[in-house]
Amino acid sequence: MTSATLTIDLSALAANWRALDCATEVETAAVVKADAYGLGIAKAGPALAAAGARQFFVAMASEGVALRRVLGPGPAISVFSGHMAGDADLIRAADLTPMINSVDQLLMHVEALPGHPFGLQLDSGMNRLGMEPAEWSALRDIALAQRPTLVMSHLACADTPEHPMNAQQLQVFEEMTAGIDAPRSLAATGGIFLGQDYHFDLTRPGVGLYGGLPFVDATPVIALDIPVIQVRDLLAGETVGYANAYTAAKDKRVATIAAGYADGLIRAMGANATLTHEGAKVPVIGRVSMDLITVDISALATTPDNLQLIGLHQSVDSVAAFAGTIGYEILTSLGARYDRVYLTS
Amino acid sequence: MTSATLTIDLSALAANWRALDCATEVETAAVVKADAYGLGIAKAGPALAAAGARQFFVAMASEGVALRRVLGPGPAISVFSGHMAGDADLIRAADLTPMINSVDQLLMHVEALPGHPFGLQLDSGMNRLGMEPAEWSALRDIALAQRPTLVMSHLACADTPEHPMNAQQLQVFEEMTAGIDAPRSLAATGGIFLGQDYHFDLTRPGVGLYGGLPFVDATPVIALDIPVIQVRDLLAGETVGYANAYTAAKDKRVATIAAGYADGLIRAMGANATLTHEGAKVPVIGRVSMDLITVDISALATTPDNLQLIGLHQSVDSVAAFAGTIGYEILTSLGARYDRVYLTS
Repeated sequence: MTSATLTIDLSALAANWRALDCATEVETAAVVKADAYGLGIAKAGPALAAAGARQFFVAMASEGVALRRVLGPGPAISVFSGHMAGDADLIRAADLTPMINSVDQLLMHVEALPGHPFGLQLDSGMNRLGMEPAEWSALRDIALAQRPTLVMSHLACADTPEHPMNAQQLQVFEEMTAGIDAPRSLAATGGIFLGQDYHFDLTRPGVGLYGGLPFVDATPVIALDIPVIQVRDLLAGETVGYANAYTAAKDKRVATIAAGYADGLIRAMGANATLTHEGAKVPVIGRVSMDLITVDISALATTPDNLQLIGLHQSVDSVAAFAGTIGYEILTSLGARYDRVYLTS
Repeated sequence: MTSATLTIDLSALAANWRALDCATEVETAAVVKADAYGLGIAKAGPALAAAGARQFFVAMASEGVALRRVLGPGPAISVFSGHMAGDADLIRAADLTPMINSVDQLLMHVEALPGHPFGLQLDSGMNRLGMEPAEWSALRDIALAQRPTLVMSHLACADTPEHPMNAQQLQVFEEMTAGIDAPRSLAATGGIFLGQDYHFDLTRPGVGLYGGLPFVDATPVIALDIPVIQVRDLLAGETVGYANAYTAAKDKRVATIAAGYADGLIRAMGANATLTHEGAKVPVIGRVSMDLITVDISALATTPDNLQLIGLHQSVDSVAAFAGTIGYEILTSLGARYDRVYLTS
């Protein structure tokens, strides 16, 4: 088969959830937005529920509907974007809990779905989603009287523990939520490692579940093996790929492999990237093209059937560094053409 | 609804195919690999067939199977990666035509599927896929005796008409195919504009069909409209988004919109990007995050329900430039969470 193989270790996913759960004294949710960070919500959702997660978070109502279908009734499914115009039927039918971001959303929610559970999202300084302190002051008593399931906020700089923004957001969140009865949540993966002050009643790890930084002790969850289509010998002076981007300084052996930027292998990684074969690193040469990548395999004694991009020898975050981005983007860009193999046990 | 809306104009797609077909005297195929460059093969394939395309190209056998399902019997479906180990059943069942890249592939093909049609891919200098001149010399008579459907090669620098590589590859291809009876093909979108010498018997446009460069007169095919979740007023000195990446120099009005890098909006575009509202450009501020982007809408007189990223006011290639990449990658990265609306007529 031409398809690259994406191997997803659901037991590693479960182990990461348990490790993050053990890292705090409080309840641990699971963030499974963006199709479980690219790994597939239909498999990742039930695996996390089996590991013990009882609260899930998605970005938008349609994702919550897909998750409810695979989880069945029981687990709470919260929606970060809150209650958007047109969402009421989905929220009711799939029993979703919108994290209300604004006065407008709160009015829409209580009008469309009176008595339906909701949470509240506060802006503690990131200025992206959630009610600001002034808006919250005006609304607080009314909103709390409706008994929200959760009052939450999100940290802008949690991946950088020494950043003063963390303590600043913590203080703002504590001031905004002082004396309330509702459960509170501030920490995602990064916030878990900032210490107990940041844990409140519920943590919401995402990227750490999937093996990404800032969870440095995460168990790797995915491997990506790409088949070799063809191997050729290159003479010194010959060029490879679009725009003749690579010129061989000496004779080389080159493999063309069957994946490219249409599979989410970000084009910017270009010739910064390496692949591996039995642990040996081999460099990409020329440009990443839509369906193909060319690799200098001169250093290998044999002609491999596959080369590995992500796995034990190169983490998701290493591959992100090739492209000047973060592991999150590598995960959520994982392509639709891969042959996906899920490991359990 | 929270989902962004991706509008795909199938009549514009058909118009682009017809325009590229009119640009040459020879037959015009349609390249629909990578899910029709991200637009959806189930809709794009039949639309191109209705416009008149009788030959289609995909990257891998599994894509050919999906295309055969929507096209039915009749049109030729060729596979650029050729005949890979394990592909025989798919090739036979879906009546695919592999573009054989090597002696190994030719042996595999005639052994597994004797008498089944195939084409031949030659390497005229890109050193990515196809038989090299020496390999081809040894194999040529045997291969041609099997009556290949097509003998093809691919240009490395066709998007740069003045590049000397174009004439060099043309000469190599002519030498490698001199005197053969089989139909020949060298040009994709860029090659069509290099002139008649490059057209041979069949052209294979891809990106131009979907409205991308180097087809400068293409009709735009897609529009991407992203809903506003929330609007907030920012005071001078306040920061926005991850890592506090943006600091307001003066008071601002900021919209948070519901799409991010998990939707293929490449994170690297960051604060280089603009969106539009009724033609007015508004800048992205802070980082592109997984599901959200923040936009400075201070210049707008009203609060919009949506902002547009791609459409009449910003082409696919303009958006690519924000991210330092090419339109092809913007197309093939278009996300799975969009609400896709297909226009006909």
